[in-house]
Amino acid sequence: MIDSIWTNAEKKIARRVFDAAAERELSLLISEFKSKAASATDTETLWNIRDWLNKRQSEIDSEFDYRYSRLIFVFANLIRARKININDLAGISEQKLAEILSLTEQ
Amino acid sequence: MIDSIWTNAEKKIARRVFDAAAERELSLLISEFKSKAASATDTETLWNIRDWLNKRQSEIDSEFDYRYSRLIFVFANLIRARKININDLAGISEQKLAEILSLTEQ
Repeated sequence: MIDSIWTNAEKKIARRVFDAAAERELSLLISEFKSKAASATDTETLWNIRDWLNKRQSEIDSEFDYRYSRLIFVFANLIRARKININDLAGISEQKLAEILSLTEQ
Repeated sequence: MIDSIWTNAEKKIARRVFDAAAERELSLLISEFKSKAASATDTETLWNIRDWLNKRQSEIDSEFDYRYSRLIFVFANLIRARKININDLAGISEQKLAEILSLTEQ
């Protein structure tokens, strides 16, 4: 059973790590978008960029889902995707860290 | 009753005028898109650009509808929007030109 009770201290750590990862992700999205847009020369490419934005928005919404009931999974996914490191989460309970690590190995 | 029978000679003129207007429109769309994209600095702007692309695509699809049954209306709208000139259509029947002009005045 996943531990979804987060203490205030843990929430602070979680929020910081989550926000920093989300910020990096969105920053990367903006640069990728600008680079795709700068090289567009036809409308086909415009519609492809629009479709790509839709896809990325839905991926990011699902990847960055800050609900305490989902956070263990969210952090495990972010670690698997090498977007955060388990050490970033130092300070949260050993049980949660173990759950997250165990999910990253699945 | 709108005349929607186009002779081959009229079709050639219509196609040329239509294609040239569509090309100008899409060219303008690409420049506007690139300029919006270049000045984007946050994701909110990205989603706004995506929504704007959706809107423009549907407007352009409706504005550039090359069906002979629609062409009189399409040319009237393009004239009203100052995207073509009635003189561009020289060579099509007097009846069609009169129908188009009459629609531009409504």
